[in-house]
Amino acid sequence: MRIAVLSGGVGGARFLRGLLRHLHDSDPDARHEVTVVANTGDDITLHGLRVCPDLDTVMYTLGDAVHEEQGWGRRDESGTVAEELARYGVGPDWFTLGDRDIATHLVRTQMLAAGYGLAAVTEALCQRWQPGVRLLPMTEQAVETHVLVEDPDRRAVHLQEWWVRMRAGVPAHGFPLVGLDRARPAPGVLDALREADVVLLPPSNPVVSLGPVLSVPGVRDVLRGTRAPVVGVSPVIGGRTVRGMAAQCLAALDVPCTAAGVAGLLADVLDGWLVDDVDAPGAHGSTTDGATTDGATTDGATTDGLRVVATDLLMRDVAGAARLAGTALDLALDLASEPAAAPPRGRS
Amino acid sequence: MRIAVLSGGVGGARFLRGLLRHLHDSDPDARHEVTVVANTGDDITLHGLRVCPDLDTVMYTLGDAVHEEQGWGRRDESGTVAEELARYGVGPDWFTLGDRDIATHLVRTQMLAAGYGLAAVTEALCQRWQPGVRLLPMTEQAVETHVLVEDPDRRAVHLQEWWVRMRAGVPAHGFPLVGLDRARPAPGVLDALREADVVLLPPSNPVVSLGPVLSVPGVRDVLRGTRAPVVGVSPVIGGRTVRGMAAQCLAALDVPCTAAGVAGLLADVLDGWLVDDVDAPGAHGSTTDGATTDGATTDGATTDGLRVVATDLLMRDVAGAARLAGTALDLALDLASEPAAAPPRGRS
Repeated sequence: MRIAVLSGGVGGARFLRGLLRHLHDSDPDARHEVTVVANTGDDITLHGLRVCPDLDTVMYTLGDAVHEEQGWGRRDESGTVAEELARYGVGPDWFTLGDRDIATHLVRTQMLAAGYGLAAVTEALCQRWQPGVRLLPMTEQAVETHVLVEDPDRRAVHLQEWWVRMRAGVPAHGFPLVGLDRARPAPGVLDALREADVVLLPPSNPVVSLGPVLSVPGVRDVLRGTRAPVVGVSPVIGGRTVRGMAAQCLAALDVPCTAAGVAGLLADVLDGWLVDDVDAPGAHGSTTDGATTDGATTDGATTDGLRVVATDLLMRDVAGAARLAGTALDLALDLASEPAAAPPRGRS
Repeated sequence: MRIAVLSGGVGGARFLRGLLRHLHDSDPDARHEVTVVANTGDDITLHGLRVCPDLDTVMYTLGDAVHEEQGWGRRDESGTVAEELARYGVGPDWFTLGDRDIATHLVRTQMLAAGYGLAAVTEALCQRWQPGVRLLPMTEQAVETHVLVEDPDRRAVHLQEWWVRMRAGVPAHGFPLVGLDRARPAPGVLDALREADVVLLPPSNPVVSLGPVLSVPGVRDVLRGTRAPVVGVSPVIGGRTVRGMAAQCLAALDVPCTAAGVAGLLADVLDGWLVDDVDAPGAHGSTTDGATTDGATTDGATTDGLRVVATDLLMRDVAGAARLAGTALDLALDLASEPAAAPPRGRS
């Protein structure tokens, strides 16, 4: 089976780890091709080093090297270089790179300077980590998500500064993708999406993680047109996000912080949508409301062509993530087996 | 007093530390200007980082941060980044950068990429280390010393590779300075040499440390023409070098590994020359022979316009280095006080 997954950082990486576990546990001998198209909108150049947080989080997580509690960065990390940089008075002081992590950025930066594209660089880095997936950047061009803020001094800041330094505490009102006009899909991205039997969208931030991936020219069109089922997992549970800054991002766009609100952002590409049990259509106190699920009253209900299934979305551990990924995959396979379930979308 | 010092790495740095100690001990309230023109021919780009070993050795030594036993690099150094680079299989494996050191190279590389010259970068780095001298690179252009070797596969290697990987064990027969044709003295270099009251040449390698500095267009001419006394310290004691690869370099040029042999290489700029007691002109078993000291029989003898003084050259500790630097300075001041001792040189 060929599975394509769009991914941001921690949520996407943990979902992917669960997916690989699920596939292995289901049939250790089966050969599946999992291609990950990762967001590079979080990328930033620090101290002259090209840092790709989402690519690295996926790589470290699937390579069994991630700092488990933190969710990103390396296990057993040290901060000697960062300490020295601080002693030199070199900023920014709000973003600290670990020593082990710096080696990754040195290899990447040197390869980019030598003329390799980010896809080839990522492939070279993955030679070490053997993530078990084909990991692709969404684009090889620099596309950096900025945040329009209401700050007396500045109108826009890099997403990393808004998130890491400002803790997403400064109200935002837009997320322009600087460089998008020059961006093309990285080699292999569109083919992987076109040829996939199943496309999965993990519970990544719909605005600044999945959003940039879907904004790369061609990606959204391919997902709208593919006959493969596209199944997403809500990052919102009971009106709250598990981690990250999705709530603040949704607020900036005046999108309700609900499973249905997020589904609305992705409606044109989705066939199936996993929500938490607390958000099951018709559940008491459900926050599943709005355009995509109006009138849906039972688990598995189809509304406006979107099949919504409720389950326990919280990935407490790898086993939980495997169960969730399995549910998403089952939904996709269900949809694929129903001729009516996979019409071309987004033609309305 | 304005003192200009040409310098390589460890030997030069230790001599400079002694000079500052001597100046301070002689008169703690006196204000002297010490300008160091450091060799950059050892510079190399590793992992995309611009590494300037001699500048850093001087900076760390005078900034009280050097690894004392090693003579270069940082005290309390760690190697996490290098270990990770090795895990990525990224070479070269024969040159390891420490974590603390890497921070220096990151700052330098980023500033160079931003358009600052190496002199400004070095000044910025020295803001932290406060070396007590004005530290200048000999040039801001990349001049890299290569070594012509008799190797079945390669004709020339970077000096660092010859020294660090080959341990100077492969016979050399030349040290071309790649990039010299585009090199100009760094801002401040020629002025510092012209305006100096005294010029000192520490016991640095005469071929690949002092040699490149003297090869930068204008430097040798200024030193030949200056009325200030130029005093050097032999790196050879009793036919052996204290450390480093001077012996191999001299052999490559068919220059005797003797105090006199080295003096011959520098004769056109030297007024005074400190040799070790074992090499005192006329001493039993003295290796001070050849053109520059022929016929000299007593300490302080003048031969061909070169005043040779014997003393204990070994810098066992900072006090020993201070004593040596004081002797060199005294010789220079002696020469300066004798009208006949400082004629323009190199006009023969």
